[in-house]
Amino acid sequence: MTSSTADVGAQLDLDAARAAYDELRAHGLSLDLTRGKPSSAQLDLATPMLSLPGEHYRAADGTDTRNYQGMQGLPELRGLFSPFLRVPVEQLIAFGNSSLELMHDTLVHALLSPLPGADRRWVDEERVRFLAPTPGYDRHFALCERLGIELVQVPMTADGPDMDVVEEIVAVDPSVKGIWCVPKYSNPDGAVYSDDTTRRLASMPAAAPDFRIFWDNAYAVHHLTEHEVEIADVLALAADAGHPDRPFVFGSTSKITLAGAGVAFLGASPANVQWWLALTAKRTIGPDKTNHLRHVMFLRDADGLREHMRRHRELIAPKFAAVNRILTERLGSVSGVHWSRPAGGYFVTLIVPDGTATEVVRLAGEAGIALTPAGATHPYGTDPEDRTIRLAPTFPELAEVERAMYGVTDCVRLALAAR
Amino acid sequence: MTSSTADVGAQLDLDAARAAYDELRAHGLSLDLTRGKPSSAQLDLATPMLSLPGEHYRAADGTDTRNYQGMQGLPELRGLFSPFLRVPVEQLIAFGNSSLELMHDTLVHALLSPLPGADRRWVDEERVRFLAPTPGYDRHFALCERLGIELVQVPMTADGPDMDVVEEIVAVDPSVKGIWCVPKYSNPDGAVYSDDTTRRLASMPAAAPDFRIFWDNAYAVHHLTEHEVEIADVLALAADAGHPDRPFVFGSTSKITLAGAGVAFLGASPANVQWWLALTAKRTIGPDKTNHLRHVMFLRDADGLREHMRRHRELIAPKFAAVNRILTERLGSVSGVHWSRPAGGYFVTLIVPDGTATEVVRLAGEAGIALTPAGATHPYGTDPEDRTIRLAPTFPELAEVERAMYGVTDCVRLALAAR
Repeated sequence: MTSSTADVGAQLDLDAARAAYDELRAHGLSLDLTRGKPSSAQLDLATPMLSLPGEHYRAADGTDTRNYQGMQGLPELRGLFSPFLRVPVEQLIAFGNSSLELMHDTLVHALLSPLPGADRRWVDEERVRFLAPTPGYDRHFALCERLGIELVQVPMTADGPDMDVVEEIVAVDPSVKGIWCVPKYSNPDGAVYSDDTTRRLASMPAAAPDFRIFWDNAYAVHHLTEHEVEIADVLALAADAGHPDRPFVFGSTSKITLAGAGVAFLGASPANVQWWLALTAKRTIGPDKTNHLRHVMFLRDADGLREHMRRHRELIAPKFAAVNRILTERLGSVSGVHWSRPAGGYFVTLIVPDGTATEVVRLAGEAGIALTPAGATHPYGTDPEDRTIRLAPTFPELAEVERAMYGVTDCVRLALAAR
Repeated sequence: MTSSTADVGAQLDLDAARAAYDELRAHGLSLDLTRGKPSSAQLDLATPMLSLPGEHYRAADGTDTRNYQGMQGLPELRGLFSPFLRVPVEQLIAFGNSSLELMHDTLVHALLSPLPGADRRWVDEERVRFLAPTPGYDRHFALCERLGIELVQVPMTADGPDMDVVEEIVAVDPSVKGIWCVPKYSNPDGAVYSDDTTRRLASMPAAAPDFRIFWDNAYAVHHLTEHEVEIADVLALAADAGHPDRPFVFGSTSKITLAGAGVAFLGASPANVQWWLALTAKRTIGPDKTNHLRHVMFLRDADGLREHMRRHRELIAPKFAAVNRILTERLGSVSGVHWSRPAGGYFVTLIVPDGTATEVVRLAGEAGIALTPAGATHPYGTDPEDRTIRLAPTFPELAEVERAMYGVTDCVRLALAAR
């Protein structure tokens, strides 16, 4: 997906491009491709949950889910997600409605209490840095920015972060305390980490004794094809390599059941789990177990979860297909323009010639098509090549996705023709 | 509630006390008066919630509660609780299932980002201290201990903290950044802050520009009598006194609806609310709005909430009456023994002669009656006079409360007779 420096504008007729764009603007659209939000139809799939658990509020072990306590979350829900997240059930925590907050709180705990293996709290370090495989997820980057953790950009490849770069930095720089990873169907480019990438991450030497992988397996079961892509077991590989405490695995049901009312998961080594639960026990008496039970009653088991995700796929795969079809039709012969064809997840990355992404997003906005700001996929919101655009096609209806994508391609054509 | 130093043991016959205790032990009880947990019967009152919101998942303004966003929480739920918490609806945040976590996160935010009015982050201060009116709530104290905030004990009176002591410390010591308050039916002694106490807290000079009152109004509607005790409006008083940013008001429905699946609230000045929401927006995309809606559909309005709390009172007032009746019957004539007669809340404080609380708790434990450890009501778990015992009578059935209290009085009588 490298960008060509050839004069691609020459292929496009400026007058025709401007006429098409003017017609687009005249439609007065109001379309939104900014965020990875499920559509109403997707949420409808899980709406029967909202009548659960009813009178059946006891967990399998007799626990009254209505009352306090149960810090680690409902065992049967952890059991259901354990194989999908590749975390042993006793090392898996089920918590609130947001995996982002589990990541935030884990960073906060590390800032204010030494991690297993650490000499001191991160606030007592001169500087704390995280590797940011780029393009990546803007909310990961924003967490670090908010907490005073510096981001060090490393390039993404089709197999995950460029491991030669990662290994070289991590081996020598003890201020590098972690790396952000979305290992399956990554946000935004849909990359799937190769087993070799995962093995190298799990086993590489690290100058920081408390180096951590923030393994955000956000799209563990979010396949766009019938093939269920699987990634390597980072916890097992790290333990085998003598670094059992290195990975924190995150996941959630926000894009499985209900975006605002799902359950988030944290998995890690026994030492990390004990550390996290002890600190969290000061913060709260426990997560909402009725929502855990609601999830178990609705999803039932591994087959129920697979079947549910198949229904999601039926709703969203046509939207991704439309994005690809329209990009191919309208921009397939334009050199310097490329895009991802993800096999899962929530995003398509559109690469335009260097220096034009901001203009495309501006043109789209003026035509009533909201796109994520150019640069959002990069640390500190700046894409030095100004070429990366993240498209999120799940929320609008299919017809709206098609209309929006025709509009986006009009904007790309005009931006290139006008250069 | 001061303790007498007279030789109260002389009133009690050691042989008779030991015989009674031996009989108690022979029963092999297993009773628990440790925590302020609602009983199953109380939770049953709100169990119809667990079939809500069903298909009616839209908020009053049309918001789809199933999806992401809505950081401040559902407006209609904030509107319902606004008058009870005395926080204007636009300054009230409805969030997750735990007010303790809102307090924790507010402390964390202040440690890692300057509060409105602050020169710097609390982690950059040489020391940070909080006033701990004592006896108080062990989880408040544990939060500070976990986060490296020192606790400075100040005495409680029947009208709230001893304000002469509070004012003297706060006026001169800029390391004192806050005070813990449970202003209504306080944990554990049931005190209600007088209007004068609240006014002095809101208006006193403070050496720290970022001094905060953590106003945990946990029992705002938890009356044990028909008289609805009200406390002064701390936000309004602080604003009138020129300290609008001083109070953070907390509350929750954990002891209104479901202990593990309620909704917590945070109220403060516009500047504090903006500060809190901006930092929290990095942490999560928003709270579980389906649970907010569930609460509104179930409680309906102010009258619905009052009626619901009346049902709680019917269940728990007899337990508090039994505690008082048995203490009066068995210890009423024993000098040096006193207890609170709260008009609301979840606890009774039993004061025994100096140096005997630990022994009473030990004797009770050996007889199968779990009591909160002596000292738990004090910072760092140490009651220097060893005289304060917290009793929590809500969770066991009434007959169990009665049995447990007869047992506790046996333990007190033996501990005093054996001195």
